Amino acid sequence: MISEILVIGDEIRSGVMVDSNAAYIARKLKEIDVEVTRHSAIGNDPTDIINILKEISQRSNIAVVIDGQSLIGENLKAAAAAKVKDVSMSVDTQALVSMENHFKAHSRPLTHFNKKKAMLLPSGTRCLRNLVGESSDFHFKIEQCDFFFLPGVPSEMRQMLQEQVIPWIRKIQKTTTDVRLIKTFSTFGLTESAMVDHVDDFNQLFPQIELSFRTNFPGIQVNLYTRGTDEGDVRVQMEAANQWVYRKLGNKIISDIGESIEKVVGDLLGRKQAHLAVAESCTGGLIADLLTNVPGSSDYFVFSAVTYSNQLKMKILGVTAQTLDRYGAVSEQTAKEMAHGVQQISDTTYGLSVSGIAGPGGATIGKPVGTVCIGLASSDFVRGHRFCYKFNDRWMNKYIFATTALDLLRQELLGIPHG
Amino acid sequence: MISEILVIGDEIRSGVMVDSNAAYIARKLKEIDVEVTRHSAIGNDPTDIINILKEISQRSNIAVVIDGQSLIGENLKAAAAAKVKDVSMSVDTQALVSMENHFKAHSRPLTHFNKKKAMLLPSGTRCLRNLVGESSDFHFKIEQCDFFFLPGVPSEMRQMLQEQVIPWIRKIQKTTTDVRLIKTFSTFGLTESAMVDHVDDFNQLFPQIELSFRTNFPGIQVNLYTRGTDEGDVRVQMEAANQWVYRKLGNKIISDIGESIEKVVGDLLGRKQAHLAVAESCTGGLIADLLTNVPGSSDYFVFSAVTYSNQLKMKILGVTAQTLDRYGAVSEQTAKEMAHGVQQISDTTYGLSVSGIAGPGGATIGKPVGTVCIGLASSDFVRGHRFCYKFNDRWMNKYIFATTALDLLRQELLGIPHG
Repeated sequence: MISEILVIGDEIRSGVMVDSNAAYIARKLKEIDVEVTRHSAIGNDPTDIINILKEISQRSNIAVVIDGQSLIGENLKAAAAAKVKDVSMSVDTQALVSMENHFKAHSRPLTHFNKKKAMLLPSGTRCLRNLVGESSDFHFKIEQCDFFFLPGVPSEMRQMLQEQVIPWIRKIQKTTTDVRLIKTFSTFGLTESAMVDHVDDFNQLFPQIELSFRTNFPGIQVNLYTRGTDEGDVRVQMEAANQWVYRKLGNKIISDIGESIEKVVGDLLGRKQAHLAVAESCTGGLIADLLTNVPGSSDYFVFSAVTYSNQLKMKILGVTAQTLDRYGAVSEQTAKEMAHGVQQISDTTYGLSVSGIAGPGGATIGKPVGTVCIGLASSDFVRGHRFCYKFNDRWMNKYIFATTALDLLRQELLGIPHG
Repeated sequence: MISEILVIGDEIRSGVMVDSNAAYIARKLKEIDVEVTRHSAIGNDPTDIINILKEISQRSNIAVVIDGQSLIGENLKAAAAAKVKDVSMSVDTQALVSMENHFKAHSRPLTHFNKKKAMLLPSGTRCLRNLVGESSDFHFKIEQCDFFFLPGVPSEMRQMLQEQVIPWIRKIQKTTTDVRLIKTFSTFGLTESAMVDHVDDFNQLFPQIELSFRTNFPGIQVNLYTRGTDEGDVRVQMEAANQWVYRKLGNKIISDIGESIEKVVGDLLGRKQAHLAVAESCTGGLIADLLTNVPGSSDYFVFSAVTYSNQLKMKILGVTAQTLDRYGAVSEQTAKEMAHGVQQISDTTYGLSVSGIAGPGGATIGKPVGTVCIGLASSDFVRGHRFCYKFNDRWMNKYIFATTALDLLRQELLGIPHG
């Protein structure tokens, strides 16, 4: 089955918005063994829409067409689809009733704009009732291709895909007895070229397993994918590949189920019934933000003191004026006192601290932008670390500082010897 | 000039990665008046690449082709381009020398993988020396279309685009004396349908001005774009449109140069020489993180206490056990004590606090997920606010809570009366 994805909207075409719907749809279709061969994005020009619908109808079997998120304008997709198939537009009463009910249920007024969107669909269309949001969408066959026209708002598109498109494809799919296995490793601490060099031999050693990367700054995800008819064989091969990847990447692997560093650290803390407090300077709350993005983080995360000023480093964390004077705010010594201080006032198992220079300002002689000092304290020990990164970007620096600190804590929790 | 963008890579096609390069390129080309009419993404299959290069060469004048970010594999683009034009591949010594110099300058070893990438290009190619990174790229004409093949790593692609592609297009562009004006409003506090209803008449009133939206959760950016030959006329029209938008959207406009809420609040604090301290609970450091993403924020941002536990709310911020017992952590009363406490210990002009339920857990009777209480304190006043949002997503809740708090501070700084 040849399938593709089309996004319609001037805001995508002109780059005002980045489309992430297409990637989501491609992943979801891959889960049911439908490979998307092409994504396209075009603007709101009716002729362009008609031309590309024609092209797709001639080369594909399934197409998912989504709106950009532009709010103004008529339902361009419907008009173009009607034209390509040479049918008229008609009022879809089912869509209108469904929309009226939705708005009534949510005690919201049905605006003129919403009404207009629901009114007209190409004749012969199968209306896909969009109960999530405010638009009405449809399934329409042109030539050999089944087109599913979905809304661009991600939450609505996702529900429609799950409830309307995927079940329909599964029904017409030839049943397959193939076994498919997917493995996703999250890694931390390798550059892209280093990663490639590490796994350079993979394709030769495991020709039946697809290896791909997903750069997810500052980490890289390594994906293995395979399928076959004999379950035993497939499992043996995948297991051998897993072990090979583990041997090559070792401690750089932080998760073998694709989890983020904050989730991995959170789980380790939870498993040890340990608690964590953080003292942040240049990361400005990002460590706490990452940790608390994980549901249930209140079980182990207690406190972060984001002390941007030296005054507050002393007042809240008990960093001494002497240390700040002698070594500066960005130093192992200050980081150690911050970590110790926050661990003590919070009475937690661990205190983790970061002080560094995210840029663009703040560099001094011997401490360029990208310098970061990290402290880790428990009731038994206090350690200081120093790193220097070369990203010339404030956000990237904040992010790599925060995740480097979390990775040091991960290594401590796993008992990995520190260098 | 018809121009388009093609992204090649299985990780984009299959949805493992979201491509944001295409949007960037489209915006940059629009700045020099080149409208991109289509984006496409396909995988690494050589036949697919050859077919789409042929298609593009027949319908467009300019095409920017970028690699996905997959690191393994040969230079598929080069081989396909050579095949479409029916020329052989040859070793590009210029590219190899340039790459060797780059690696020498950065004291990094030139790996086998990097070498392989530089070695072969289609004969007759104009090599675009990629001095930023590790790959070699080229400019190649097929039929009527000038193809620019660029790397997928964003920083490298951006430099190549700026230094190689844009100057080349400008040279061949017909010189135009058109005046172009762009205006970008950032808004906060309007839903998408409300926004559409507010500006429903725009297209009728200002037919020569293009209005577009960019949903940038939780705000919406409103973009106006116009061009014309008479500078006076264009300016008068744009000014009238600006005033109309201001009348319609009023205080919902937070910036008329497209700035984020954290930048706007930071500038207002800076202009008043005011200082801010924050006390966060459910936002978990996100407010501090947003504020400190702005370079120079150390001028006004002093401290955030991310007190996830009640213990630390009492110990650090001086919230009373009585208040927590009687009203709970998520209450206007607690939020007020948090704001007051953090303002006092930090000795800042303002203290801002947030306590709420981001979900998925934590809801109680009368306090569903999405409930948030916000406190704002100065040495003169302490105020409490309560909001209830209906997003069923932890991250969205954290984000809307944090930005709602920042918007309340913005209104205070502007002297907008509070409801």
